[in-house]
Amino acid sequence: MNDIRKMLEGIRDGSVSVDDALLELKKKPFEDIGFAKVDLHRRLRQGASEVIYGAGKTPEQISGILDSMVRNGQERVLITRLSQEAAASISSRHPLDYHEDARIGIAGGMPEPDGIGTIVVATGGTSDIPVAEEAALTAEVMGNKVTRLYDVGVSGLHRTLSHLDQIMSATVVIAIAGMEGALASVLGGLTDAPVIAVPTSVGYGASFSGLAALLSMLNSCASGVSVVNIDNGFGAGYLASMINHIARKDGER
Amino acid sequence: MNDIRKMLEGIRDGSVSVDDALLELKKKPFEDIGFAKVDLHRRLRQGASEVIYGAGKTPEQISGILDSMVRNGQERVLITRLSQEAAASISSRHPLDYHEDARIGIAGGMPEPDGIGTIVVATGGTSDIPVAEEAALTAEVMGNKVTRLYDVGVSGLHRTLSHLDQIMSATVVIAIAGMEGALASVLGGLTDAPVIAVPTSVGYGASFSGLAALLSMLNSCASGVSVVNIDNGFGAGYLASMINHIARKDGER
Amino acid sequence: MNDIRKMLEGIRDGSVSVDDALLELKKKPFEDIGFAKVDLHRRLRQGASEVIYGAGKTPEQISGILDSMVRNGQERVLITRLSQEAAASISSRHPLDYHEDARIGIAGGMPEPDGIGTIVVATGGTSDIPVAEEAALTAEVMGNKVTRLYDVGVSGLHRTLSHLDQIMSATVVIAIAGMEGALASVLGGLTDAPVIAVPTSVGYGASFSGLAALLSMLNSCASGVSVVNIDNGFGAGYLASMINHIARKDGER
Amino acid sequence: MNDIRKMLEGIRDGSVSVDDALLELKKKPFEDIGFAKVDLHRRLRQGASEVIYGAGKTPEQISGILDSMVRNGQERVLITRLSQEAAASISSRHPLDYHEDARIGIAGGMPEPDGIGTIVVATGGTSDIPVAEEAALTAEVMGNKVTRLYDVGVSGLHRTLSHLDQIMSATVVIAIAGMEGALASVLGGLTDAPVIAVPTSVGYGASFSGLAALLSMLNSCASGVSVVNIDNGFGAGYLASMINHIARKDGER
Amino acid sequence: MNDIRKMLEGIRDGSVSVDDALLELKKKPFEDIGFAKVDLHRRLRQGASEVIYGAGKTPEQISGILDSMVRNGQERVLITRLSQEAAASISSRHPLDYHEDARIGIAGGMPEPDGIGTIVVATGGTSDIPVAEEAALTAEVMGNKVTRLYDVGVSGLHRTLSHLDQIMSATVVIAIAGMEGALASVLGGLTDAPVIAVPTSVGYGASFSGLAALLSMLNSCASGVSVVNIDNGFGAGYLASMINHIARKDGER
Amino acid sequence: MNDIRKMLEGIRDGSVSVDDALLELKKKPFEDIGFAKVDLHRRLRQGASEVIYGAGKTPEQISGILDSMVRNGQERVLITRLSQEAAASISSRHPLDYHEDARIGIAGGMPEPDGIGTIVVATGGTSDIPVAEEAALTAEVMGNKVTRLYDVGVSGLHRTLSHLDQIMSATVVIAIAGMEGALASVLGGLTDAPVIAVPTSVGYGASFSGLAALLSMLNSCASGVSVVNIDNGFGAGYLASMINHIARKDGER
Amino acid sequence: MNDIRKMLEGIRDGSVSVDDALLELKKKPFEDIGFAKVDLHRRLRQGASEVIYGAGKTPEQISGILDSMVRNGQERVLITRLSQEAAASISSRHPLDYHEDARIGIAGGMPEPDGIGTIVVATGGTSDIPVAEEAALTAEVMGNKVTRLYDVGVSGLHRTLSHLDQIMSATVVIAIAGMEGALASVLGGLTDAPVIAVPTSVGYGASFSGLAALLSMLNSCASGVSVVNIDNGFGAGYLASMINHIARKDGER
Amino acid sequence: MNDIRKMLEGIRDGSVSVDDALLELKKKPFEDIGFAKVDLHRRLRQGASEVIYGAGKTPEQISGILDSMVRNGQERVLITRLSQEAAASISSRHPLDYHEDARIGIAGGMPEPDGIGTIVVATGGTSDIPVAEEAALTAEVMGNKVTRLYDVGVSGLHRTLSHLDQIMSATVVIAIAGMEGALASVLGGLTDAPVIAVPTSVGYGASFSGLAALLSMLNSCASGVSVVNIDNGFGAGYLASMINHIARKDGER
Repeated sequence: MNDIRKMLEGIRDGSVSVDDALLELKKKPFEDIGFAKVDLHRRLRQGASEVIYGAGKTPEQISGILDSMVRNGQERVLITRLSQEAAASISSRHPLDYHEDARIGIAGGMPEPDGIGTIVVATGGTSDIPVAEEAALTAEVMGNKVTRLYDVGVSGLHRTLSHLDQIMSATVVIAIAGMEGALASVLGGLTDAPVIAVPTSVGYGASFSGLAALLSMLNSCASGVSVVNIDNGFGAGYLASMINHIARKDGER
Repeated sequence: MNDIRKMLEGIRDGSVSVDDALLELKKKPFEDIGFAKVDLHRRLRQGASEVIYGAGKTPEQISGILDSMVRNGQERVLITRLSQEAAASISSRHPLDYHEDARIGIAGGMPEPDGIGTIVVATGGTSDIPVAEEAALTAEVMGNKVTRLYDVGVSGLHRTLSHLDQIMSATVVIAIAGMEGALASVLGGLTDAPVIAVPTSVGYGASFSGLAALLSMLNSCASGVSVVNIDNGFGAGYLASMINHIARKDGER
Repeated sequence: MNDIRKMLEGIRDGSVSVDDALLELKKKPFEDIGFAKVDLHRRLRQGASEVIYGAGKTPEQISGILDSMVRNGQERVLITRLSQEAAASISSRHPLDYHEDARIGIAGGMPEPDGIGTIVVATGGTSDIPVAEEAALTAEVMGNKVTRLYDVGVSGLHRTLSHLDQIMSATVVIAIAGMEGALASVLGGLTDAPVIAVPTSVGYGASFSGLAALLSMLNSCASGVSVVNIDNGFGAGYLASMINHIARKDGER
Repeated sequence: MNDIRKMLEGIRDGSVSVDDALLELKKKPFEDIGFAKVDLHRRLRQGASEVIYGAGKTPEQISGILDSMVRNGQERVLITRLSQEAAASISSRHPLDYHEDARIGIAGGMPEPDGIGTIVVATGGTSDIPVAEEAALTAEVMGNKVTRLYDVGVSGLHRTLSHLDQIMSATVVIAIAGMEGALASVLGGLTDAPVIAVPTSVGYGASFSGLAALLSMLNSCASGVSVVNIDNGFGAGYLASMINHIARKDGER
Repeated sequence: MNDIRKMLEGIRDGSVSVDDALLELKKKPFEDIGFAKVDLHRRLRQGASEVIYGAGKTPEQISGILDSMVRNGQERVLITRLSQEAAASISSRHPLDYHEDARIGIAGGMPEPDGIGTIVVATGGTSDIPVAEEAALTAEVMGNKVTRLYDVGVSGLHRTLSHLDQIMSATVVIAIAGMEGALASVLGGLTDAPVIAVPTSVGYGASFSGLAALLSMLNSCASGVSVVNIDNGFGAGYLASMINHIARKDGER
Repeated sequence: MNDIRKMLEGIRDGSVSVDDALLELKKKPFEDIGFAKVDLHRRLRQGASEVIYGAGKTPEQISGILDSMVRNGQERVLITRLSQEAAASISSRHPLDYHEDARIGIAGGMPEPDGIGTIVVATGGTSDIPVAEEAALTAEVMGNKVTRLYDVGVSGLHRTLSHLDQIMSATVVIAIAGMEGALASVLGGLTDAPVIAVPTSVGYGASFSGLAALLSMLNSCASGVSVVNIDNGFGAGYLASMINHIARKDGER
Repeated sequence: MNDIRKMLEGIRDGSVSVDDALLELKKKPFEDIGFAKVDLHRRLRQGASEVIYGAGKTPEQISGILDSMVRNGQERVLITRLSQEAAASISSRHPLDYHEDARIGIAGGMPEPDGIGTIVVATGGTSDIPVAEEAALTAEVMGNKVTRLYDVGVSGLHRTLSHLDQIMSATVVIAIAGMEGALASVLGGLTDAPVIAVPTSVGYGASFSGLAALLSMLNSCASGVSVVNIDNGFGAGYLASMINHIARKDGER
Repeated sequence: MNDIRKMLEGIRDGSVSVDDALLELKKKPFEDIGFAKVDLHRRLRQGASEVIYGAGKTPEQISGILDSMVRNGQERVLITRLSQEAAASISSRHPLDYHEDARIGIAGGMPEPDGIGTIVVATGGTSDIPVAEEAALTAEVMGNKVTRLYDVGVSGLHRTLSHLDQIMSATVVIAIAGMEGALASVLGGLTDAPVIAVPTSVGYGASFSGLAALLSMLNSCASGVSVVNIDNGFGAGYLASMINHIARKDGER
């Protein structure tokens, strides 16, 4: 409430007019009175990194938003669902690291990890890697250390188990799998970290574009497993970062 | 085709009239010409053991069928989906071993196992045991050695792995699980025996009465896994026995 | 690896025979080599509190398990899906706090909260309260401070917003709703804490026993939302506790 | 019934033959006896504006229908699902306002609004705008004042709430959203106007092409919400106009 | 925003301290900024009639709420989903008109209709009548004139058509049908009033508890049709009343 | 149209006034103008046999309808979905043949068959017999010769084939099966008569209450197969009778 | 059975050896013993017209089959699912009438109708016409008189009713509709002829590619309606012809 | 466990230090304790033939893997889901037999069959052949004798039955069918070999891309039928080979 106090003191001092103050209050009603904590908090946190959902936007539109963000002091911008063509076009105007698999572009480089521990991103097969990279890069750009364990599907359990230490010492595990989605249950049984399960649309026939994996993960017999939408790598990475920064947030208060 | 040959020779010899032969051919067309091999073969094989599907039949009806079977020389009869009340009623007239969990009654006792090897019947949880017992007893009554591995679900992988030897040396594995049904994939990855997956209706919410486990099992990333209907323990046991007796059948020919 | 070192030293010293050591290694193969960390860790943590899934067990069975747990030094036991009748029967032998709404029994009382912050358990309507209480009591018995915000569904947004401070200062938010399940998205937009969404089977017609809420929550436009199975209050409470204790776990290492 | 009376009087007077009258009655049975009110009424009302469903019609076909309508005195014609190419081709022969987002062409310009109040067309995200524009333009061409509130999805509640006055003073609200479709419930709780919910196919994975939003909206916990088909912007705009002109219709009688 | 302006002027004038202003802004955020209009408006309007959702409440609970409402000046209370037993119990304490078919209780009697016109409630069959009565009584208790057209299903079109005048002169039509739900389309083609379609769970086999009717109604080829949840008679009656009172509401402003 | 012609001639002749004619036209629009042919025709034809849908009606209601039908000269009445209790109660007042399996009561006895040929009613198993009897008795009461072929499911093809003559000489075949519903395809391949397929809800697990059989039958690779609703024996019998009487109907015209 | 009799007499007479007879019986078992009636009968009947399913066949393959059929005395061949390109290619070698809408090619011209009466093919909209033409042409090529009633959907009931005479006097009615599929019920209520309902994939959103129409038609409240697969115009036309030729078939026997 | 025993004895004897033993145990946990049998066993067995899943891999990637396999002594490699273009590209570097229908490439030629008996691969129609060839070639490359019975669908039962001997003498039957999938049940009733059912996505409308066939096969009334995923020819061929080699495997032990 410091900003409002200052404004009110400005009125008292004559340095701020009543009309200007009223306009300000009207313009940002939620921001000033408590509700806007939401937004305020978000802006502060997002000073570090912000997201553009690239799907359905032209390279020009994305460049425009990016320009505006950078001008407003945004250090770092994550662009998801970005085609290679769009990335090439944008790169000619802004320095951009493009990750083809994940279809992600990052402006402003990667921050130092500042989370509680490490996020493990595991996939059942190699076809799940694009979704996994979307999750991993999202987590990294939000300041997390990420360990990638790809192709550790349950039909070759020894591959999974050979990474036991990493799985058991993770702060958060992201389990990404299509087909029967059993990876989430197996990892959930091996770790006491929260497991974020991401069903992928990888598979055919009765996988019904990820439905089989989705239902499988929702019914996991392991405790501590929750599920995000099919192919939603970004959502998993974002949530994992939230969890991996909980202590820091607690410190804020 | 010996019977037909004899009949044809009878015509040639004059001992059989054309009309009688024609009638005979008309009366049992499939049996005589090759088609009835099906039935013949089945009858022969079923000298050993036969099945009564008990659901929807009164104890009187079941007793009647049982009587008739025994009178026709049936050594051993398996009655599935048999309620405790019906079993009690039938027991008063026929010696019957009743298995409450599996809701199975067996008349004539268990045969000596004569299959190729051992059938492993594994379940994800304790709630899957009734389906598992239906499978196991069906297999046993058909002459198979059965190893039961119950409650070895994937969320406690150490339990599964502690039975590695049995899983790896099985001739056929029956994997029975509700919820996310991941057991089939895990076992399929641990053994090179055929895995018959039985989804169960155990679970709640988005398990949709076994649909989640069914889809999961159909999409198994492990090779060598096939699926039977939800809760179909009998079908799995029957099929496992078929597979476990293939060599014997081959010898028959 | 200290236990193994001791055992190996015992062999060297002659105080442990090779056969005994071998048996021990064979008996607990996964436990000793690293894999069993899973189990070990679980037992340690579960020294504080353990769970019995009450559904499908007789009061006698539950009492038996409870006895055994208490004898083995278990301080506190949570029994879920426990009917009032079973609770009454068990209570006659063990002191038990029974929570009728949540169908939960707790032996050993509540621990002091030792999590990072507060878990908010919010419901869309009053009919969602049983699931919410299952979540809240699970979280409490695992050592979490819980704030209950019931009946704050989105069709009366002012009710939701009047709890803005609690929602925004939570470490974890559990959003429980049937019907259209919009609560998860609204709460997800108001807080930067992880939101665990629990669809409930509350509703009728095209709610299809929670499917509508489930799909709605999986498609939440808010970041930081993940979903557990329909009516799975226990799972949500357990996962929330995991997240709310992440710092402590980090300290362990 | 005036026409029939005249015809009957014509028979009486001898100016109409019985056969001619019979033929007339047979030819237009429904029209003359009361049923045809439907059609008559429709034609009268449609003097103001008529609709051509453009999908699956060639530019030539559309031009032909448009010609015929204009020749028959149609002031204004709305063409929905019209591609840009078709619009360009038609424009060369008829003056046509083409709206690319909504894929709508309008011949004859916009009428003055003559409804009871204002129709609010709100969307959850920017991807829902094409459906919203179809709804808004349909409503405008039918004589309604429309307020557009785009991208006010529930995960950023402050955006929604900043338009509270417009939402609360609307005569009808059209809530258009994909993904979890929570907008309909939130708006339904903020206004006492009827809310027409339009699920859109925007989303991915478990949105199942709009099914998640559809089920969500059908299960809205807010009263006064009804639902039209997925992506059916035209239907929503048409229905909203019906409701917004109810008083006028009442005056007609 | 007048109150805030006054307060700000008070600061400028020195009659209000900055601290007091700050406290005031913090204390009543929603009320002061406009948001609380929602609740205020609702409370005013609901002076006339209020609803208790009876399902899952004991007669005692319902009586308690009813008492409290009446004490607070509520003229008239509608209780939905009320069993006959509960109604009998409540009746002993409050005068109550109970409608068994609709499972609705009404305290305070029916008001005079004050809507724009007449609401037609039509059903496809006699089994749909309970849902229809819920809709009709809800509309009546909210001050609407209702015409009931029951059992006018489309397989006997002459029955439907014999009520053409009533259908065509309605202000709002509620079309209630199970099975194939075609009634909504047929009525939608016969009237230019808004049609609120209510699928019912009446039917068997592939009606899938109302899903067939629901999909059918959502896909109506008639314009002006929208759909509420399966069996949601209350929702349809409530919405119809909203529409039928639009002119009055407009006058309010 | 003869009545109308007479009336019009009456106007011409002066024996009928214009006002009277107008009133007459207005009063009975459908009957007089051609539409009511529907009803008239139906009434005439239904002189022979009429149907009461017994589900959800009290024995008193059924008796009342039956009384009224008989008083109006109805020779024969079919009551479907009639419980044994209701049948007993009705029997005390009306002579009634009750068929317990089919839950059908018939008043007035069976007519002589007068159809073109024979209707074969075949079932896959014994559990489908209640649906089959509903079909068979419906067909018989409408004047058809029926051949019952029960338990001829495709897994024992020799049973099916042993009835080849009857199947091939049928005028219409009704194929009734649950589980995988393959009977319809097999019979469709064996006969050139129309096959009416009736999926039944017999089965378990992934039969999803008849959905598997329904989809199977809709996708039949045999030509000449059409499908009615799950368990709809009455509908199949009724339609089969329609087809088996087509020649007679043709003669009527 | 004449051939077999002759052979048996040959054995008796010594003109046929037992081995030759046995070989003959073994070689053509089904044909000789009664089963082959199926095939024989089919071949006889199909002397008049035969069908080639064109989808997935090259023009060369179709031409080859056509050649072979014509050489074997086939008068008339119907080719379904035939693309315009394939038709053009085939036409260069065989005279072929190609119907673009229906994607049907006919070699050998149309036969004189020889069915019992007239088949009405009705559609709900203009988009259903391709399916309708497939049905109509199939029926015509099989010797039926067909009346086309297109675009008589139930939302404009006057259009439907203006064809009442044709609908009521049909021998068979084919009702083809997408979207809500109500046409089948409406026509079923207007005629006492069998109604073959064909759901089409016309529609969008919640029509789910014809599922809405399919379910609607299966749940028709009108008696005498049965359903074929989505878009299966050929199946409907073929079945209608079967029904419309029943008398002739009866005469054959 | 011999290695561990030796090591433990070494400790006792002083020839192995505790630290070295500890390191050894830590380094190769799975191999030493028994778990690694899995991998070892697999590697040994896969000396004969290995599989590359070609979908989503570039020709370069496939060539690379192939190179590496051959260099490591792999005799024979099966590449599934291989496009013609990729095959052509690979062929220029490695000798490769490409099967266009099955989209399978085989390097190293076919082995001599060494299974127990013959595998029958049967299809319902010609469109199922690509899936069938995938199954048949997979089985052949794994050392099985395969009999192909294509286009023996149940609507022409005589075709099926004309292959009765082959069906009855098979060791394993693979039944491949789309549409209604009845083939599995019919074959299951004709043979006592295990039947592996493969639903295909062949069909249209309500086949829902193979769902109808899948459900049909899961509900087969024949015993001994299990199901793999839609279009999963490889899985069926692989499983059939497993079963057909069971005796050999048994001998191995």
